[in-house]
Amino acid sequence: MSSKSEIKLHHVLIVGAGAGLSASIARRFHSEGMAISLAARNTGKLDDLVNETSAEVFQCDASQPDQVDVLFANLDRSKTGAPDVVVYNPSFRVRGPFTELDPDEVYRTLMVTGYGGFLVARQSAIRMSKAGRGVIIFTGASASMKGYAMSAPFAMGKFALRGLAQSMARELQPKGVHVTHVNIDGGIRSEARPGRHDAPGKPDSMLDPDAIADTYWHLANQHRSAWTQETELRPWLENF
Amino acid sequence: MSSKSEIKLHHVLIVGAGAGLSASIARRFHSEGMAISLAARNTGKLDDLVNETSAEVFQCDASQPDQVDVLFANLDRSKTGAPDVVVYNPSFRVRGPFTELDPDEVYRTLMVTGYGGFLVARQSAIRMSKAGRGVIIFTGASASMKGYAMSAPFAMGKFALRGLAQSMARELQPKGVHVTHVNIDGGIRSEARPGRHDAPGKPDSMLDPDAIADTYWHLANQHRSAWTQETELRPWLENF
Amino acid sequence: MSSKSEIKLHHVLIVGAGAGLSASIARRFHSEGMAISLAARNTGKLDDLVNETSAEVFQCDASQPDQVDVLFANLDRSKTGAPDVVVYNPSFRVRGPFTELDPDEVYRTLMVTGYGGFLVARQSAIRMSKAGRGVIIFTGASASMKGYAMSAPFAMGKFALRGLAQSMARELQPKGVHVTHVNIDGGIRSEARPGRHDAPGKPDSMLDPDAIADTYWHLANQHRSAWTQETELRPWLENF
Amino acid sequence: MSSKSEIKLHHVLIVGAGAGLSASIARRFHSEGMAISLAARNTGKLDDLVNETSAEVFQCDASQPDQVDVLFANLDRSKTGAPDVVVYNPSFRVRGPFTELDPDEVYRTLMVTGYGGFLVARQSAIRMSKAGRGVIIFTGASASMKGYAMSAPFAMGKFALRGLAQSMARELQPKGVHVTHVNIDGGIRSEARPGRHDAPGKPDSMLDPDAIADTYWHLANQHRSAWTQETELRPWLENF
Repeated sequence: MSSKSEIKLHHVLIVGAGAGLSASIARRFHSEGMAISLAARNTGKLDDLVNETSAEVFQCDASQPDQVDVLFANLDRSKTGAPDVVVYNPSFRVRGPFTELDPDEVYRTLMVTGYGGFLVARQSAIRMSKAGRGVIIFTGASASMKGYAMSAPFAMGKFALRGLAQSMARELQPKGVHVTHVNIDGGIRSEARPGRHDAPGKPDSMLDPDAIADTYWHLANQHRSAWTQETELRPWLENF
Repeated sequence: MSSKSEIKLHHVLIVGAGAGLSASIARRFHSEGMAISLAARNTGKLDDLVNETSAEVFQCDASQPDQVDVLFANLDRSKTGAPDVVVYNPSFRVRGPFTELDPDEVYRTLMVTGYGGFLVARQSAIRMSKAGRGVIIFTGASASMKGYAMSAPFAMGKFALRGLAQSMARELQPKGVHVTHVNIDGGIRSEARPGRHDAPGKPDSMLDPDAIADTYWHLANQHRSAWTQETELRPWLENF
Repeated sequence: MSSKSEIKLHHVLIVGAGAGLSASIARRFHSEGMAISLAARNTGKLDDLVNETSAEVFQCDASQPDQVDVLFANLDRSKTGAPDVVVYNPSFRVRGPFTELDPDEVYRTLMVTGYGGFLVARQSAIRMSKAGRGVIIFTGASASMKGYAMSAPFAMGKFALRGLAQSMARELQPKGVHVTHVNIDGGIRSEARPGRHDAPGKPDSMLDPDAIADTYWHLANQHRSAWTQETELRPWLENF
Repeated sequence: MSSKSEIKLHHVLIVGAGAGLSASIARRFHSEGMAISLAARNTGKLDDLVNETSAEVFQCDASQPDQVDVLFANLDRSKTGAPDVVVYNPSFRVRGPFTELDPDEVYRTLMVTGYGGFLVARQSAIRMSKAGRGVIIFTGASASMKGYAMSAPFAMGKFALRGLAQSMARELQPKGVHVTHVNIDGGIRSEARPGRHDAPGKPDSMLDPDAIADTYWHLANQHRSAWTQETELRPWLENF
């Protein structure tokens, strides 16, 4: 944290909370003394994390305007109040040959990955721009920067999210709201999920979610004279 | 046209047809001997262009999957058959302070500017990849490359369209389908619309739609050994 | 050529002239009625091209300020006068493990690929900005956009050239000088050179220099209301 | 610092050391227990900083291969040994109308801003790749990403430096050497220099060098599973 930073963060909302990156962010921000709120479409698997971080949990499909409105109304009424840090993680991904893509699934990808980002950012920005401070972190992916074959829908959603982040930054940063977009350019390690372990002989070849959370914590605490708008994180062994 | 190009283009579909850029494209491609099909949500103003280019006209809201399916089914049955060049022009734009944006209008922006691009490209690609040839041109904007303040929705839609174009290019170009994205980085001149004229003393400070159509014609005819995936057009006096 | 273009190009200078791309450009621009000047460090192999295009030939190491000054002084005195189109092709490339690179060769790469571009562009711009018109085309490469492993020097030179092109465009385009940078993102086919042929079963998998010349001709003739500053050319089968 | 990071940094070399950013980096890294080495063409003004950070000082023109070789030979023989973090700050900038630029000054810009970065990085990489660890930080600028009018030379040098950083990252990161490039997208505040103060009513509108140093410290300590290759820092009020 900058020695110049006079503001202590107190409450983070993590949208799209699950067992991976979101849990690492929750633990890290909790360990720094922040209150934690978790929002997810399925809140069933969050019990352990709630115990660990004393988090409040909110059920919310981020792609639905009314559900996002209710989420923020509930946060306003909660004892911690509106969050001063919001992390937007949700994404939905459908892959496959372009000509065989199901338009309904492409639609859902755009809604969850892009439109939901707008809805959450809108309610966040309404409160933060009034307060004159706050941090919004968008979790991007390789597909935010480059459209890959067999993965057009995800590129559409993640590109849209990056466009959103840029527009918001240009408009809201002069109002004190830091808007940052992190391209997570590689797979995130997970003990729980098959295929999410480092390959043999390739230590740290997948992103450690705790290491990502370190950078999120750093970004959230940057002094307003030196804010990062776009950055990227990738493993040392990643091709790019 | 490349001296190496053995293939003559025969039929262009212009989606989002109106009085401006679309008309110039239609005229130019018609003057080269191609059949013209125009698709638009409002087909009321296309009479002059139809007379001039012997175009067939199709009513279609490009953001509606079933309407796009019907459009291509009708093209299949038409005497010119499926198009070998498709231009996607539609966009919807809502501007204003981020915190005052109407979620319904942001939704519509994403649907028309982004999702409609997918729907039209999907039906185009199904036919073109089978044929082993074809050209898809996406009309981008400054907002495709940079998210501007007061204009987050348009950035979301145009970024999504660019992500789509990149993914498609990587997947479909090896099947013979040229996918190209043109960033129109400035205002397009229009005799019919106020505010769309060159400023006094600044000739050619807005994009001439006929000049854009020249580059579209060039792109559509590039030899497959040297295809452009992304390019940009802007007036000589434009700040960028 | 744009129907709006009232200006006919009359004289192209191709710097870094050799048997490949430069020859195709010379032939194409000659076939359109332009006078051709060729500048090269080694002019020995240009006899056939000179016969074919009635070109004037100038010996010049483009990385040497005084030689570039002499080149343009000679052009001024020639019967065709100063060129209204200048193409900068020279590059020098050294590859290898980063820690084993020879600083002298890295220096030469920067000088030929980057500094020479500045020297030629400077003399061109002096004349063109006075005339209020002209076209400068920089030949880029994949390495203009992305620094590849084992190839840091080439990335340094080609990145520098792209930075030059952007700065010049922003400054000189409002003075009537079109500055354009073409990323040639793949290998150029050559009948004369081994390893420069299409792979078996992969027709047109290398860039045909005549097809590149088509796009150079198009760019040189764009109407000033719709200029391309950056574009790219790659074969349909290229990975990118 | 990542909880996963088992490696403690011990010695930073700051090249292009002066009174501004370099001093903040030196102070911050010193406060974390690291040994500090400063290299500069003019070492005359470094006395205060040396007192404050117990730094060793080396006279070196980074654009001269032999001087850089001597610098690293001297570091090898010093009691702190070779650095495990190297920061490359030097730049030289000449501005003005493109057609009036002095080729000698453009040459010097390329040498100091670009070629010097290669020379220092080369000697650093030789040692770090052998050790299997180390961090190289390149200080970029707005001109690293965009070539501005009236400033072509600086764009050439800074673009080259970014190309270098990318190539090195792709090659050396898999050998344990973290290569990162920071776009400092705004003016750095300086108490000593006129014109380097925040505008009235615009607090923190220039980058605080201590805040930049915070991010450099964060980057230097990132866990190898989540390295940043490119990032940017700009004031909250900056237009971009």
